[in-house]
Amino acid sequence: MNKSKPDRPSKDESSAPPTSRGAKRKKRTRLKLLNSAMALFSRKDAQDVTINDITEGADVGFGTFYNHFESKDAIYEAVLFYAFDSFGEVVDAHLDRINDPAEKISTALRLTLREAKLKKDWGRFLVREAFSEMGLSSGLAPRLARDIDEGISQGRFKHGDIDLMTLVIGASTVGCISIGLGEDSTHPQLEEDKTLGQRFIEHALKTLGLPDDEANRLAIVPLPDDDLSERAF
Amino acid sequence: MNKSKPDRPSKDESSAPPTSRGAKRKKRTRLKLLNSAMALFSRKDAQDVTINDITEGADVGFGTFYNHFESKDAIYEAVLFYAFDSFGEVVDAHLDRINDPAEKISTALRLTLREAKLKKDWGRFLVREAFSEMGLSSGLAPRLARDIDEGISQGRFKHGDIDLMTLVIGASTVGCISIGLGEDSTHPQLEEDKTLGQRFIEHALKTLGLPDDEANRLAIVPLPDDDLSERAF
Repeated sequence: MNKSKPDRPSKDESSAPPTSRGAKRKKRTRLKLLNSAMALFSRKDAQDVTINDITEGADVGFGTFYNHFESKDAIYEAVLFYAFDSFGEVVDAHLDRINDPAEKISTALRLTLREAKLKKDWGRFLVREAFSEMGLSSGLAPRLARDIDEGISQGRFKHGDIDLMTLVIGASTVGCISIGLGEDSTHPQLEEDKTLGQRFIEHALKTLGLPDDEANRLAIVPLPDDDLSERAF
Repeated sequence: MNKSKPDRPSKDESSAPPTSRGAKRKKRTRLKLLNSAMALFSRKDAQDVTINDITEGADVGFGTFYNHFESKDAIYEAVLFYAFDSFGEVVDAHLDRINDPAEKISTALRLTLREAKLKKDWGRFLVREAFSEMGLSSGLAPRLARDIDEGISQGRFKHGDIDLMTLVIGASTVGCISIGLGEDSTHPQLEEDKTLGQRFIEHALKTLGLPDDEANRLAIVPLPDDDLSERAF
């Protein structure tokens, strides 16, 4: 797979708002294809997914695929971009309004956990790709590292090992999402899922060096209501 | 998949040591099939692996498969048992000689990280199944929870939330293994892999409530030299 050139939205789609009926329909079809592909790629390796699987899942004709993507590789890259970078950009837009790096991290983590609960395919895809080269180098991990770095620079965080903190907090986030995804699991953790997620955020903030009372408060900071994934695309 | 009855070694294999040439050969063939299956299941969903793939990978005839396993489901269960429980039992045999729960956890985590480095297929399989129902309920996660529980009961650990500690430490272990597996990754963490693993163990012990100097010391406690995976089967 050529991972160097993610298939970002093409010029004709992004240069003008999709006002015409045709352009809106085209965007909707592209989104259907991306969602179908994400559902498939979240369960199978790319090599075991066919273009036919993708168009059937999207309920569009086989030929329609090529109006939007050149190849399976191209849609795989687009799904990665859609799933990671695009979501990360929307989260960043929310973080821009926040000054405290600890509140930034709490907000970003809680938005991620919430999104994974609302969009199971996205959560499953995130878990599957989290430790891939793409998952480590784009999307959420480098943003987490950036926010940890900021907190250390400002003296807000006491733990100075950015790589370790990114690993521990990032991997635990993946773990929280994974447990939440085990729908038919009878594991006791599942029933305490929400609580465990919240306890995890609190713990992550303490790990970074926040005093207990601040970690407790920031772990339940209000989130924006809007549906991020709609805006993420 | 029927997950209730893992295909443990059958009576005729386990009731007597395999002294005869025939029994030894049979055991070797079974091990070849299991290793081939693990390599395949670590990269693909079980539904996308065929019995023919498994026998080809093991370099044995197709029919030989049925001398050892009834079905693909049966070998999948056997691989899960082999990969998780069987390894966990060998680790437990080492922990039996250790009294301090903190040293137990450090030893178990370091043995796991070392094993994943020595046996890439095993590591990949562990990452893939770590958060599955089987991964959560058998193998390493419940053993980690047990050792954390022991440390809390003895007053050795200060952090009393077993589920959260198991999640954070278990998921970070999976993260460490994942990063080590990204062979062609150019991510900077990869170059510091050994160091990061060690820093993680130290951090995990501090998270449980150990003083810094003890965590530093226990993170580099000597490991047994013997090859665990040979004995694990």
